[in-house]
Amino acid sequence: MNKTAENILQSIYSPKDLKKVNIDDLPKLCEEIREYMLNILAEHPGHLASSLGVVELTVALHYVFDTPYDRIVWDVGHQAYAHKILTERKDKFNTLRQLNGLSGFPSPSESEYDTFTAGHASNSISAALGMSVAANLNNEERKVIAIIGDAAIAGGLAFEGLNNASSSPNDLLIILNDNDMAIDRNVGALNKYLIKITTSPRYNKFRYKIYSLLRRKNIIKDNHKGVFTRFTNSIKSLISKHQNIFEGLNIRYFGPINGHDTKSIIRILNDIKDLKGPKILHLKTIKGKGYSPAEKDVTIWHAPGKFNKDTGERIKSENKFTKYQDVFGETLVELANKNDKIVGITPAMPTGCSMNIMNKHFPERCFDVGIAEEHAVTFSGGLAKEGLIPFCNIYSSFMQRAFDEVIHDIAIQKLHVVFCLDRAGIVGEDGMTHHGSLDMAYLRCIPNMVISAPMNEHYLRHLMFTAAETNCPFAIRYPRGSGNILDWKCSPQILDIGKGRQICDGKDVAILSIGTIGNAALDAIEKAKSKGINAALYDMIFVKPIDTDILDYVAQNYEKVITVEDGTIKGGFGSAVAEYMVMNGYKSKIKMIGIPDEFVTHGKPSELYELCKMNSNSIYDAIINKW
Amino acid sequence: MNKTAENILQSIYSPKDLKKVNIDDLPKLCEEIREYMLNILAEHPGHLASSLGVVELTVALHYVFDTPYDRIVWDVGHQAYAHKILTERKDKFNTLRQLNGLSGFPSPSESEYDTFTAGHASNSISAALGMSVAANLNNEERKVIAIIGDAAIAGGLAFEGLNNASSSPNDLLIILNDNDMAIDRNVGALNKYLIKITTSPRYNKFRYKIYSLLRRKNIIKDNHKGVFTRFTNSIKSLISKHQNIFEGLNIRYFGPINGHDTKSIIRILNDIKDLKGPKILHLKTIKGKGYSPAEKDVTIWHAPGKFNKDTGERIKSENKFTKYQDVFGETLVELANKNDKIVGITPAMPTGCSMNIMNKHFPERCFDVGIAEEHAVTFSGGLAKEGLIPFCNIYSSFMQRAFDEVIHDIAIQKLHVVFCLDRAGIVGEDGMTHHGSLDMAYLRCIPNMVISAPMNEHYLRHLMFTAAETNCPFAIRYPRGSGNILDWKCSPQILDIGKGRQICDGKDVAILSIGTIGNAALDAIEKAKSKGINAALYDMIFVKPIDTDILDYVAQNYEKVITVEDGTIKGGFGSAVAEYMVMNGYKSKIKMIGIPDEFVTHGKPSELYELCKMNSNSIYDAIINKW
Repeated sequence: MNKTAENILQSIYSPKDLKKVNIDDLPKLCEEIREYMLNILAEHPGHLASSLGVVELTVALHYVFDTPYDRIVWDVGHQAYAHKILTERKDKFNTLRQLNGLSGFPSPSESEYDTFTAGHASNSISAALGMSVAANLNNEERKVIAIIGDAAIAGGLAFEGLNNASSSPNDLLIILNDNDMAIDRNVGALNKYLIKITTSPRYNKFRYKIYSLLRRKNIIKDNHKGVFTRFTNSIKSLISKHQNIFEGLNIRYFGPINGHDTKSIIRILNDIKDLKGPKILHLKTIKGKGYSPAEKDVTIWHAPGKFNKDTGERIKSENKFTKYQDVFGETLVELANKNDKIVGITPAMPTGCSMNIMNKHFPERCFDVGIAEEHAVTFSGGLAKEGLIPFCNIYSSFMQRAFDEVIHDIAIQKLHVVFCLDRAGIVGEDGMTHHGSLDMAYLRCIPNMVISAPMNEHYLRHLMFTAAETNCPFAIRYPRGSGNILDWKCSPQILDIGKGRQICDGKDVAILSIGTIGNAALDAIEKAKSKGINAALYDMIFVKPIDTDILDYVAQNYEKVITVEDGTIKGGFGSAVAEYMVMNGYKSKIKMIGIPDEFVTHGKPSELYELCKMNSNSIYDAIINKW
Repeated sequence: MNKTAENILQSIYSPKDLKKVNIDDLPKLCEEIREYMLNILAEHPGHLASSLGVVELTVALHYVFDTPYDRIVWDVGHQAYAHKILTERKDKFNTLRQLNGLSGFPSPSESEYDTFTAGHASNSISAALGMSVAANLNNEERKVIAIIGDAAIAGGLAFEGLNNASSSPNDLLIILNDNDMAIDRNVGALNKYLIKITTSPRYNKFRYKIYSLLRRKNIIKDNHKGVFTRFTNSIKSLISKHQNIFEGLNIRYFGPINGHDTKSIIRILNDIKDLKGPKILHLKTIKGKGYSPAEKDVTIWHAPGKFNKDTGERIKSENKFTKYQDVFGETLVELANKNDKIVGITPAMPTGCSMNIMNKHFPERCFDVGIAEEHAVTFSGGLAKEGLIPFCNIYSSFMQRAFDEVIHDIAIQKLHVVFCLDRAGIVGEDGMTHHGSLDMAYLRCIPNMVISAPMNEHYLRHLMFTAAETNCPFAIRYPRGSGNILDWKCSPQILDIGKGRQICDGKDVAILSIGTIGNAALDAIEKAKSKGINAALYDMIFVKPIDTDILDYVAQNYEKVITVEDGTIKGGFGSAVAEYMVMNGYKSKIKMIGIPDEFVTHGKPSELYELCKMNSNSIYDAIINKW
């Protein structure tokens, strides 16, 4: 009965090939793409559930639009796997997230089909709006489409983009990929009815005519500041009782429609793609669609690791050590048990950062604010102002989003907020948008901050307990993944702020390290010993205030000093050491080991440490070689 | 006829005194407060129009609420002058914005009535929400009120706050101070009618009952991610056809009401203050209210400088030099005339940064995106992606808001966006939230960036022309105010990236400077010459890439090196010099002159440069003293 028994995907290299497929065969193609993705992701771990949810949308977009001339801008780019498969990268898909392989996110340096960086959420509308306004200024007929999820659209940047979408001439199409399961079916049915009216070309033409007329007559004004007056000016409110935020912002709204009905998506895209002005199409999709284990538990299957595709069993890697994330989560519960002022804040990462452990014990003292890093920080400031002690856990690279809030809302007031910077340093497969490279540099310039990093699980606990008792902004950075101490549940100590510790002595060279990378230094030192060269190691614990007693001692006793950090060298920990040395006229020569001044690619952490010359071999070389 | 001929304000020191005033006398008190403000601001310049607009609101708030136990959180804090006058600071009001005087913004270190830092826009809702949630957790009956303007509420952070306002138990009251003149009067009349219904206590009690019931029955769910589903869940839509964004976000909406009718404001505040849950009160106010010159031109009277109160004549200070802002603005027009790819972007500062000059010539190539720094940067990225050359002008301290966007949306892709960082370095009277102290430090850690600063007007022009021809992210930082070259319209040069220049030679000490502070160094050098001590001066022009030829030469020829920058020392320009020196084993001792590691207060720039030991006297001391 099936007219095309052969594999359609096989014949597709680029969107040009896709356009030759009969529209009736597209559902089969979607199944093949899912199969292809699942087969590869079972072996080569990646983000699964999100990409499964947008297969039909991806096929429809490349079927209707003329990519790469038309621009597809993905938001939260781990939805883009089907996009990669359909755009000349099918054969490389098994290299995903590996060194020298495909990036896990859209990457303009990888393909012209990837139009904009998409590792951090909520940027697609602003970026696509820029492209669409530029097309207009450049007199190009180019279409620009931003795809944004219902979680990402709640971020402040996305709202700023929406708020500006109608303020300059453009024909942007925003697609809201809404995979929230909680929507009321009755409402959906009502809206399904509404869409039939609103996508009628005649209705739209009529509406746009009225709109243009009112604009020409100056009855509706463009006014950047008067955003909330726009709700009342909304043209749609003149001719329909249906009102929503998008229409309020002068963006024409269509939907919601079933995001897994390829033909319907194609029909509506064709209907609306030539409409002038900004517009939004609301799709309802199912995260994990088409693979029942993933549909059942989307959180686990967001990034499941390796799995047996047939049984749906996840293949857990053997690791006897506890993740730093769980050390954080368990220790936070201990602290919260002791002190009822302690509260936890996370922007949409309760599972990733293990704050869900505290959430189980103290749901009313845990706040998941969604993808809203800025709010997470300022909200923490408000809590701290009233005597609570917020532990605000944000991934290091996402904390960049809240930089001003750390300065303006926390540091100026010296508020007691503990910033736990998870995934600091090299993160591995997620690559350049996700490495937590810059935090020591960008936090160090902020007055009133304490900045610290533990060398192991015990010191993470010590630092968390110390931070809870230290009345000032306090940052603790620690890496993704496991440490190396089986018995991590030590009795916590209160540390002296700004004091490091000597790990071992040695007369030939001094190593100053910060954070877990100190363990690589220790390995290197052991190895160098066998060559008769002895290095001292100091775990500085604090980047700021830095232990000047150790710096004085080292400068007075060593000609060669090596600084070691899992962060960018420019402005970071080594830079702090350098400042102190030259200001005090010390003459030691310093070799700085850390992340170089470039955006580091993706791959296994061990591969990237080697690439950046930051592993124990490089430290060993620095110890024994002349420089 | 007037019952209280005597001056009421005279008898008021704190809100306790205010509460004794008869409600019928409050309008007279408001007039007195305006008079008091105008008399002082005519002599001691400050922000005028905003504060005039909220006199009635301020009086009403302190009349109804029990401050400082109840928390008033101001947003864009230059509205807070009446608040300062009513809260124990009337007698110091004439010290506003002066060294050791009152801050121009709410300042928690100045008064317990000032609950949160309010120099950067859009943070009040998140901060106040934190306070209100904390009051709830702490079982306190405290009221928390956030006041936010219609421009500030469009910022992404404010939206994140609104989006989270209903997700944790709290009784936050948000007051939207809407001074946009464009609102349609009919709509206003309709809403005035609606407010009578919605503020009825019986109606509210009834509504809250239904709401609680639905929550208990789990018919309405709290779901952080499902923000847009809330629109349809909105309880109000069940019983009223009136729908707006706030109700959509589960925040109860009241208004709009006349923000200059003290009695009405008091009545409604009393009506709604004990309502449970988050709520918003929408006030219509007139910026500049009560002083007709200010009402007529609010942009000029936003911060008018000195003026004659009676004639409304502004007293212009004599300055024969052109502001850097106008050099930027005029030069941008020259560039835009030459190259039609050049476009201008500003987040709500067209007058402040003088982009209005370009806007006059090329309105379609100028984009004022409102208070939305993040969007300004990412939108610029989209424009650049399509071949345009955006000059994105953002005040240095506000650029902190867009830090991640500079990294993720621009630098990773090496997009050709020119960041013009206005008001870099010490800004003077606006104080600690506004100094552009950190930009060199926070930009220097970002790969792919060029970072530069001109020593004078000519070099600002050279750098702008150079940036227009350099295909990478390019930052130019320059200060507020005037330079010292009358004939600033030089013929622009294309500079070599990463190359500095020698200004003068001298054998005793080498000074490396960046930016306009190099002129202070030049003064110091002249003075030291008369003591027989000769210093060389290098204007480095670029912080990144830094001119290593100059650094090598200086390190090989000078024991003493002084770095001079109008920015924080930690991680900044001097730090870049230090890194290079120690890595290369150079032995020069370095004295770093720059902003110390603290938040610098407000005052005249000359006073602050002295305070920070950054003026020519301090540089002179560094040249001639032993260290």
